[in-house]
Amino acid sequence: MCICPKIYNFAPSKDNKMNLFKEKEKLNDFFSNQNQNATRIGLVPTMGALHEGHISLIHRAVSENDMVVVSIFVNPTQFNNKEDLDKYPRTLQEDIDKIKAFNEHVIIYAPATEDVYATAVQAANFDFDGLEFQMEGKHRPGHFDGVGTIVKKLFEIVKPTNAYFGEKDFQQLQIIKKMVAKEQMPVNIVGCPILREANGLAMSSRNERLQPETRKNASFIFETLLLAKDMFGTKNVRDVEHWVTEAFEKNENFELEYIEICDEETLKPVTENLNTKNYRAFIAVYADEVRLIDNIALN
Amino acid sequence: MCICPKIYNFAPSKDNKMNLFKEKEKLNDFFSNQNQNATRIGLVPTMGALHEGHISLIHRAVSENDMVVVSIFVNPTQFNNKEDLDKYPRTLQEDIDKIKAFNEHVIIYAPATEDVYATAVQAANFDFDGLEFQMEGKHRPGHFDGVGTIVKKLFEIVKPTNAYFGEKDFQQLQIIKKMVAKEQMPVNIVGCPILREANGLAMSSRNERLQPETRKNASFIFETLLLAKDMFGTKNVRDVEHWVTEAFEKNENFELEYIEICDEETLKPVTENLNTKNYRAFIAVYADEVRLIDNIALN
Repeated sequence: MCICPKIYNFAPSKDNKMNLFKEKEKLNDFFSNQNQNATRIGLVPTMGALHEGHISLIHRAVSENDMVVVSIFVNPTQFNNKEDLDKYPRTLQEDIDKIKAFNEHVIIYAPATEDVYATAVQAANFDFDGLEFQMEGKHRPGHFDGVGTIVKKLFEIVKPTNAYFGEKDFQQLQIIKKMVAKEQMPVNIVGCPILREANGLAMSSRNERLQPETRKNASFIFETLLLAKDMFGTKNVRDVEHWVTEAFEKNENFELEYIEICDEETLKPVTENLNTKNYRAFIAVYADEVRLIDNIALN
Repeated sequence: MCICPKIYNFAPSKDNKMNLFKEKEKLNDFFSNQNQNATRIGLVPTMGALHEGHISLIHRAVSENDMVVVSIFVNPTQFNNKEDLDKYPRTLQEDIDKIKAFNEHVIIYAPATEDVYATAVQAANFDFDGLEFQMEGKHRPGHFDGVGTIVKKLFEIVKPTNAYFGEKDFQQLQIIKKMVAKEQMPVNIVGCPILREANGLAMSSRNERLQPETRKNASFIFETLLLAKDMFGTKNVRDVEHWVTEAFEKNENFELEYIEICDEETLKPVTENLNTKNYRAFIAVYADEVRLIDNIALN
């Protein structure tokens, strides 16, 4: 294909055409006024503080849809800890500026809490066939009910063809796939690979809360996962987890919450390495009182 | 700032307004027709086969300029090996589609060789104060003359305010800063951090040429750099390099070309760790006959 050069004046970025919706009614009005070409809608649900990981989800969504909605909403019902909710980075203006770099088919839905939670700010109860009792579910009571609640609401509001989630929150991804399957929701869930900073730290909005020195040293988390991956082939699973635990005990900068080697499908801890299944190591670590999670495919 | 929702029809992505220029004259015509707001021009020089690393450079450029030119040109004069040049991935249509995800202030300059090299396809000779004799310079004779030649030509054609380069090619970044300083070119060089895939492999167009299994196992390269970083504080520099060499001798999937621990400024190998300077470990590795490079800050 050849695109012939077009000559036209342009305004500086701040004047870009860009759609920001704070109310679901206005978002729906917008969609009802679209022409027939808007057949595929991609949703990238975020809590803002956008980083390259989010950006890569948005690019994937743009390449597979006619229109992309980036939702920016720090969902209170998925925080089991008020301090974590209060301290979660909020950078709406910077987020808007980043989305402006995209074409006009990428729009933002950044609602107030009332727009999403019409009545009580409360999570529904979900049954994710036990996925919700593993790892993050154990350590963050109610977290996945909150996640299920907001994602379901966003699906009802945006009615996406495809929805994009990063594998950094791998358990969340599996739980949303489960919800969609059990409730037969008409949306395709797309999992996208983790992106990492130069030192190997998994991209996360929470990284902004780390002290520069801690952020630099946080390469230790992924380094330990890589060494665990090496051991996985040869050592007993429990021994690998034990080795990781000891490695963190020797490092005063980071406090290990859990290391678990699980079956990717069931998220249940495995005791032995059957090569018929896919395994992943999952880790949660505190650094500067910031909680970081990461994971790595083992085979 | 509040952006009120605007209702307008949109066409699917394939019909986006997007400017692709194959001739420098047309690019210049375009700029000469721009209004006064186009004061800051950002240049992201690439050889195409765009990946998230490139995308992050483009986002940085969009955030700091009124207009961004992404150049896509596989520069023959920087390849010291014809087979490497022939096998370098070329995916112009996919690259164009990725750039279409950006707003209309991001344009592509994708010239034919003749448009850049008016007469002979030949590299000029540069003096980079010795930076060109280290590492990549030793192993890729003439490479940095070719890099200097094309980057200088692109600066003359695009006249950028800012130009963006990834730290994955850290020696290239330092060499371009040197060229700009020595020749007093009116452009600001912006170095941007490496982005990594989920397994730690540095983003590179060449990764596309790896077999899936090799790409998975390529986490070994960064893993080794992380361990070298750990040792750097405590062990003798030569011992660290020796350890890396032995680690690669034990791994049949990868062939080490070099590991060097250098001063970030001079790129000269260091013999001892003086904490007054910044050090980096640089590595070049062959995998599936694909040459991969990476580096890591050590302090």
